[in-house]
Amino acid sequence: MSTILDRLADVIESRKPANGGDPATSYTAKLLAKGDDAILKKIGEEATETVMAAKDARAGGDSGKVLYEVADLWFHTLVLLAQFDLKPQQVLDELARREGVSGIEEKASRKE
Amino acid sequence: MSTILDRLADVIESRKPANGGDPATSYTAKLLAKGDDAILKKIGEEATETVMAAKDARAGGDSGKVLYEVADLWFHTLVLLAQFDLKPQQVLDELARREGVSGIEEKASRKE
Amino acid sequence: MSTILDRLADVIESRKPANGGDPATSYTAKLLAKGDDAILKKIGEEATETVMAAKDARAGGDSGKVLYEVADLWFHTLVLLAQFDLKPQQVLDELARREGVSGIEEKASRKE
Amino acid sequence: MSTILDRLADVIESRKPANGGDPATSYTAKLLAKGDDAILKKIGEEATETVMAAKDARAGGDSGKVLYEVADLWFHTLVLLAQFDLKPQQVLDELARREGVSGIEEKASRKE
Repeated sequence: MSTILDRLADVIESRKPANGGDPATSYTAKLLAKGDDAILKKIGEEATETVMAAKDARAGGDSGKVLYEVADLWFHTLVLLAQFDLKPQQVLDELARREGVSGIEEKASRKE
Repeated sequence: MSTILDRLADVIESRKPANGGDPATSYTAKLLAKGDDAILKKIGEEATETVMAAKDARAGGDSGKVLYEVADLWFHTLVLLAQFDLKPQQVLDELARREGVSGIEEKASRKE
Repeated sequence: MSTILDRLADVIESRKPANGGDPATSYTAKLLAKGDDAILKKIGEEATETVMAAKDARAGGDSGKVLYEVADLWFHTLVLLAQFDLKPQQVLDELARREGVSGIEEKASRKE
Repeated sequence: MSTILDRLADVIESRKPANGGDPATSYTAKLLAKGDDAILKKIGEEATETVMAAKDARAGGDSGKVLYEVADLWFHTLVLLAQFDLKPQQVLDELARREGVSGIEEKASRKE
């Protein structure tokens, strides 16, 4: 069901320039108005920040920072999905499909 | 409810060395056994592959590759969350919290 | 001799807060004043931009963009080296050391 | 003059498939034979490893790891340059050009 992801996807969809998103009042509308490269840069940036947060957490920092950075990274992948007219449910379906495959592999390997 | 993410988190949890995950039969168990750095490298790698897939899709390629790479990226962030004893629901809660804030901002901006 | 790299390293060194670098007038001084995380974020960002420039160049864009982004990436690694009191010559020495090793490997492999 | 970079560029050039580079005996030849995506993935990967090494060094680790990872990152950018028929000297020229501009800015700012 993943209602939070669906709801976020709807909000992001409404921020597209074609849907009247206003870059002056919304961060997401601004990012979508800038286009592909701005979104992709953010994905590289948030991945780097996730790596840094994990290293900081291990060095005695707060693991809440990892949570926060993963949320940032997921959010920007949702913007990317919207930019390519893809839905988070499609990502979840792909992950479920793999989990299924993995479940079969697991059973197979247990026989060895 | 995000049941797919919860189920994936459960599968990943069961692959931890402490829970009997077997690196010889499971990719996830192998990654978790290697530890932080191996997981973080994958996050950097999958972010780069997401960027490449988006560029390829725009150059006339298949947008399904974007979906596939985002799934890869999400999967490895789920492994990272498990490694830090965090749950995908916590990431969704953080995103919902921000959406709420954003909703208020949106209403405020509509008054202008 | 790599005089350009040495000269750049000297300029960057002079921009350190301890050496009187002024964040108000110099981008490098500002970055060094912000510290490790700001520099590391830039490295992740410039690596992503290098990947994007290479993809753009292949899709009919300008390969000069690749040059420009690699220059950006090298520049920010020079700032990182300064931040850790390392010199570009040490990186070149490490690369020369490997080239030597590789030269030997090459000779060895030609005998096969 | 940057002779080490020039020499490395020559070695990499000789590893191109068109120049008889043998993927079976040379890592560089193998990478060049795989093409753009393999090289770009390595750049994303080495940037991530540089970030990790810097974090480790600050947490009490060895700053030599930073040197080693920057060398890895530079090496793979040299492979990328070769792949796009660009030369390290062109990157150094671009950096020198910027340093000149920056030198002028610096002088200007000292007058204030």
